[in-house]
Amino acid sequence: MKKVVLAYSGGLDTTFCAIHLSKEKGYEVHAVLVNTGGFEQEELERIGERAKTLGVASFKVLDVISTYYDEVIKFLIYGNVLKNQTYPLSVSAERILQAKALAEYSKSIGATSIAHGSTGAGNDQVRFDMIFQTILPDIEIITPIRDLKLSREEEITYLKKHGVSMNFEKAAYSINKGIWGTSIGGKETLTSDQALPESAYPTQVSVTDPATIELTFEKGELVGVNGEKFDHPVAAILKVQELASPYGIGRDIHVGDTIIGIKGRVGFEAAGPLVIIKAHQLLEKHTLTKWQSYWKNQMSEFYGNHLHEGHYLDPVMRNMEAFMTDTQTYVSGVVKVQLAPYRFSMIGVNSEHDLMSSKFGSYGEMNKGYTAEDVKGFTKILGNQTAIFHKVNKSLDNENH
Amino acid sequence: MKKVVLAYSGGLDTTFCAIHLSKEKGYEVHAVLVNTGGFEQEELERIGERAKTLGVASFKVLDVISTYYDEVIKFLIYGNVLKNQTYPLSVSAERILQAKALAEYSKSIGATSIAHGSTGAGNDQVRFDMIFQTILPDIEIITPIRDLKLSREEEITYLKKHGVSMNFEKAAYSINKGIWGTSIGGKETLTSDQALPESAYPTQVSVTDPATIELTFEKGELVGVNGEKFDHPVAAILKVQELASPYGIGRDIHVGDTIIGIKGRVGFEAAGPLVIIKAHQLLEKHTLTKWQSYWKNQMSEFYGNHLHEGHYLDPVMRNMEAFMTDTQTYVSGVVKVQLAPYRFSMIGVNSEHDLMSSKFGSYGEMNKGYTAEDVKGFTKILGNQTAIFHKVNKSLDNENH
Amino acid sequence: MKKVVLAYSGGLDTTFCAIHLSKEKGYEVHAVLVNTGGFEQEELERIGERAKTLGVASFKVLDVISTYYDEVIKFLIYGNVLKNQTYPLSVSAERILQAKALAEYSKSIGATSIAHGSTGAGNDQVRFDMIFQTILPDIEIITPIRDLKLSREEEITYLKKHGVSMNFEKAAYSINKGIWGTSIGGKETLTSDQALPESAYPTQVSVTDPATIELTFEKGELVGVNGEKFDHPVAAILKVQELASPYGIGRDIHVGDTIIGIKGRVGFEAAGPLVIIKAHQLLEKHTLTKWQSYWKNQMSEFYGNHLHEGHYLDPVMRNMEAFMTDTQTYVSGVVKVQLAPYRFSMIGVNSEHDLMSSKFGSYGEMNKGYTAEDVKGFTKILGNQTAIFHKVNKSLDNENH
Amino acid sequence: MKKVVLAYSGGLDTTFCAIHLSKEKGYEVHAVLVNTGGFEQEELERIGERAKTLGVASFKVLDVISTYYDEVIKFLIYGNVLKNQTYPLSVSAERILQAKALAEYSKSIGATSIAHGSTGAGNDQVRFDMIFQTILPDIEIITPIRDLKLSREEEITYLKKHGVSMNFEKAAYSINKGIWGTSIGGKETLTSDQALPESAYPTQVSVTDPATIELTFEKGELVGVNGEKFDHPVAAILKVQELASPYGIGRDIHVGDTIIGIKGRVGFEAAGPLVIIKAHQLLEKHTLTKWQSYWKNQMSEFYGNHLHEGHYLDPVMRNMEAFMTDTQTYVSGVVKVQLAPYRFSMIGVNSEHDLMSSKFGSYGEMNKGYTAEDVKGFTKILGNQTAIFHKVNKSLDNENH
Repeated sequence: MKKVVLAYSGGLDTTFCAIHLSKEKGYEVHAVLVNTGGFEQEELERIGERAKTLGVASFKVLDVISTYYDEVIKFLIYGNVLKNQTYPLSVSAERILQAKALAEYSKSIGATSIAHGSTGAGNDQVRFDMIFQTILPDIEIITPIRDLKLSREEEITYLKKHGVSMNFEKAAYSINKGIWGTSIGGKETLTSDQALPESAYPTQVSVTDPATIELTFEKGELVGVNGEKFDHPVAAILKVQELASPYGIGRDIHVGDTIIGIKGRVGFEAAGPLVIIKAHQLLEKHTLTKWQSYWKNQMSEFYGNHLHEGHYLDPVMRNMEAFMTDTQTYVSGVVKVQLAPYRFSMIGVNSEHDLMSSKFGSYGEMNKGYTAEDVKGFTKILGNQTAIFHKVNKSLDNENH
Repeated sequence: MKKVVLAYSGGLDTTFCAIHLSKEKGYEVHAVLVNTGGFEQEELERIGERAKTLGVASFKVLDVISTYYDEVIKFLIYGNVLKNQTYPLSVSAERILQAKALAEYSKSIGATSIAHGSTGAGNDQVRFDMIFQTILPDIEIITPIRDLKLSREEEITYLKKHGVSMNFEKAAYSINKGIWGTSIGGKETLTSDQALPESAYPTQVSVTDPATIELTFEKGELVGVNGEKFDHPVAAILKVQELASPYGIGRDIHVGDTIIGIKGRVGFEAAGPLVIIKAHQLLEKHTLTKWQSYWKNQMSEFYGNHLHEGHYLDPVMRNMEAFMTDTQTYVSGVVKVQLAPYRFSMIGVNSEHDLMSSKFGSYGEMNKGYTAEDVKGFTKILGNQTAIFHKVNKSLDNENH
Repeated sequence: MKKVVLAYSGGLDTTFCAIHLSKEKGYEVHAVLVNTGGFEQEELERIGERAKTLGVASFKVLDVISTYYDEVIKFLIYGNVLKNQTYPLSVSAERILQAKALAEYSKSIGATSIAHGSTGAGNDQVRFDMIFQTILPDIEIITPIRDLKLSREEEITYLKKHGVSMNFEKAAYSINKGIWGTSIGGKETLTSDQALPESAYPTQVSVTDPATIELTFEKGELVGVNGEKFDHPVAAILKVQELASPYGIGRDIHVGDTIIGIKGRVGFEAAGPLVIIKAHQLLEKHTLTKWQSYWKNQMSEFYGNHLHEGHYLDPVMRNMEAFMTDTQTYVSGVVKVQLAPYRFSMIGVNSEHDLMSSKFGSYGEMNKGYTAEDVKGFTKILGNQTAIFHKVNKSLDNENH
Repeated sequence: MKKVVLAYSGGLDTTFCAIHLSKEKGYEVHAVLVNTGGFEQEELERIGERAKTLGVASFKVLDVISTYYDEVIKFLIYGNVLKNQTYPLSVSAERILQAKALAEYSKSIGATSIAHGSTGAGNDQVRFDMIFQTILPDIEIITPIRDLKLSREEEITYLKKHGVSMNFEKAAYSINKGIWGTSIGGKETLTSDQALPESAYPTQVSVTDPATIELTFEKGELVGVNGEKFDHPVAAILKVQELASPYGIGRDIHVGDTIIGIKGRVGFEAAGPLVIIKAHQLLEKHTLTKWQSYWKNQMSEFYGNHLHEGHYLDPVMRNMEAFMTDTQTYVSGVVKVQLAPYRFSMIGVNSEHDLMSSKFGSYGEMNKGYTAEDVKGFTKILGNQTAIFHKVNKSLDNENH
């Protein structure tokens, strides 16, 4: 009997896959739910209960939240990665880690097939397949939903026929939750010109009084919030999320290029990720040199795009992580952030690595360490080549440069 | 008698320069105020009146607002330039254009010297000198404030002695206003950890009811607001500014690298620039291809930094402008923006050049134009090299990649 | 009867396609040979003669050499494009232009299908398909060789059966010739560790006395050779080729990434392209500013890769061409090159736009235009931030920085 | 008595400095020669003998060749750094390491001043000052030659007066030798249009029979030559130099931007560096993924420029080194190189990390691991966005794209 590991979430599509593969195709199905922070314990138990009724050989939850942080989120923070200046890659990053965990689990139990419930229309199919074919080059990849092209109604009929009772009502929006943000797709996001209504956001605004919070970073990692230190940055991230999300902070719509070439639009709420990234970025503005910032930015844009497109295992990603890690040596200090309904702003930083240290001169105030003559010489030589260029080419003679 | 063109703003420093150069140094002083949008007509007249009492040979206002747009602001919009992801380069951009206008005016009247009131502590001295030495390689550059290192008190004593009566009280903050934003420096901005108080912002919040505005772009240029078309983008920018600034939108503190190597911090309010750039950027997300966006971003960061550091006349800037202009061919359409106190958000776009056109498939919905098999083949080959890499190097065998 | 345009070269594969499509599949076959410089008139006539015996409705030669220069080669020179620092993209560039010409011709005669003889193993299939599907989104693309997977022997048997008599002997190497270089594949190029033997190169060394030639560029375009001016740069390119190729110059093996993810290796000889690119590059070193060179290099690498991979019609390519064209304004002058067997070297340039003009100081000699004090000030401020960084972080205290 | 460390080479300028500082200015002069591979033992002894006659308190040779490799050359190889595609940065790299060694030595002996013999016209003054002011922020930097602006004749008169007898004849060319190459400046290099004559090159061609050599790399470092393993890469570099330089290989003229903005030209011979870099680069073409190569190239250009301009201590350099080091994990194998008079060429590589491994399909031959259908799907989706772009914008309708 062929062993298949099924990426299982308990939703309509993967429930269909579980029955289809075990009862119809005769596979020994190992349903695996990879939790990247989107499921509560109770929910996981309920999903596990139902899984057992679908004919699967086993159901397992892989809790990968801390691996997710160590292997992906950490670098998204180091890189201040916001795809298209907006989106913290909530779903993209998650899929990568889930695929990787599934592939490694498949290898560990000697599965010869691996299945996922992606359709043929999105990014996830590419991300899953890319990771699987790299880690498990000889495995059979099965994608019943993509291949059978069933309509929602056909799936429901099938499930009912197999005695499954679950909530078959279609949600107004498709929601995907994880520790690095929640995505919201549907209705308005399928247009180019409409915003999501207030009610579409899972977290409603419940706090209106502004508050100031303090985030403590050590070598680029979030280690404390409001003076409290945490064992693992994941706990600190959850704390920021808890404090910021009741304000309705971190909501937006991401518009961008899908892997398959069409443009896509998806809403999200990601209070924690947004606040953390912007705070980290401010701390870097105070602690990195000009060219460190420049190169981190140039590289991060590529890193985010490449991750988004499923290229996590391209070794260039490890090389970039080595670069980014090395930049964080002195990115330590406290960042104060002001939270308010629907918005947040940076107050400032305290860091012993702050290059704005007044010991070396304050901008616009009395200069230390150099003289007016130094600046004149500096400027003369800094502009030397451009001046020569225009002299040689007489290119400013008619004001037409 | 040697002719000097003096960059004149009517403030303490340039008033000192006017007297010092004309009465003490015996220059024929031509005081020139370059207006980049920061001065009202009435104010200009008042400044002109006083100038004439200081011994200058002439006083002239150069109104360069539309040139400022054509030669600088336009490209800051094309490039969505926000230095350090924050600052629209309000002052940096202005200085460049002012220096250029002053240099061209000096040439036109045959001046042999050019003077500005910059101190030795900031960026402006570098920007002025760089532009002057390039356009006027043989001119004498005079900077009395930088060279004499006078204290504020010494300057006041000097002016009083010369019969000048003006408001000598030091403002709490140093304000610089122009069409592309107002900067606010002083007190808190000299620290790393304090935000500006509400009262420090010149424009106070006076409107609280949210509103939706529509911005119309043609080939990347803002040509209309709320359905009204304007003769010149400058008028459209002023309109957005008028609508958005009463909300207290576009305030922030920029932290970054000064040209002279120290870190600096400056507050700003720039409602119009921020709303316009973000709207333009959204329209681009719908109309540019993936690699157009990528390269525009990579280039814009350099363009902004290079401009900020006074390298406007480096011919690479013209080359980049040629690139950016070429990207704007189809960046046309209407962007809807929601304004609210202290914040704004994008609603969406309408554009006949929208690549998200549902005619070619909607993301996550039924695919058109390609099949599940196409995506499988795509993915297999897209990931081919990474898969080969790991097979050859057996680099995933121990889960340590 | 369905009209098909067949990309026809007269070789085994496209001869097969001509018969297969006309006699077996019942298409009205329009055989089109796109000449990018690899065919002599006599050869074209011979190919045309045979074509008419294969059942095709028409045979046509499209001479696109000057278009090839205007739309592709020109920018490869502007960009000094050598893929992987080695290969002038001889074949890659050619395929793009051929595909484009074929697509436009298909449109002009109202063909409903377009066919090419690419196999399923190389880059060309991707280039052809990408261009066709973009210019002719509704056309049927037919690739008999790729689809039928016939062996060479099966093709020969088939052709003999259809009365074709041609030289069926397999050449030791597969040769592709065009104005921008000749590629040589086979035997050694299929290994990683062997060079091509002398005899594999189509052009054998026939001149051994060194000679000096002079190349005249105007705004980046080659317009003259040894003092002789040419009507079109294509004629100048051919002249350089005529002078340089008898030396065996411009031979190498390109190793790089194919579009389909595997590594490939191909030999080439391209005396003209190599000499021209290196001469152009030297002229740029004298005439461009530091950042112009830097950005041209960064961009050219991408431009070459993107072209190689068939993305010629991505609008970012036009944007980059706008950038590159703008950089060439002052790239005018004469470059002297020394030719010798198997090698060439640059002697120097003469250009009125040479920024090394001794009028502004010679390197290492007496400085003009700035003083020792200027350089001291320059250096102090140039290194200011790094000095502050290490002071703040005490990072040099233990010599371990 | 104030202690000064003098960068001493035994040449005219530093001999002048030694006397001037000790006898005239009353410093306790510690003359230090930093050997980066340009001096033989015998020569060092002769220089030391003379130094003692100049009034210096001590003379010391710092042999930094292996540090030079570990901290600089290694990364120039990893990055295949050739400034302006030509120059291995022979002198630039050396100065950095010399400055660093001098600064560290000054610190160790508690010197309060540091002196070097640079003129005011070149790059070296900037490199020395930048490193000194960063490592020794409080030290006094003394540059007698730059400050006194003495002519060669004045220096000679001064030295003769102080009883120095050395060869005062001016060499036709100024030569600087080190392990990473020898530079040659003077006469022709001061023009734009003349090459150096054969006789100007220190190493004359003495071997004419072609030979094949094998270079063994481990993780990017050269560890063996012709099968012989070496204890330290420095020994391997010297071996390649010994084998290649008698062929007159690695000669060229570098044209580029000096730090002070003018263009400069310098000849060099660097057989070892050129052969090693090109061999390393070929090995990378076989072992790195496409995007690893791309990013290494983008970054290396900046790394080389930044080093050239003296910014070695900017922490971004360490970050880039971390990136580059990480890319070298699988850059191991043997590269065969053909040497011949005035030229060399790559034969091929043998590496167990070769991604061209025929196990995964050979380019242009029968494909493994994917089908024709896969490639069709790949191409359709790869070109999807560009096709949509042109459809939406009807931009190919009139052949004007």
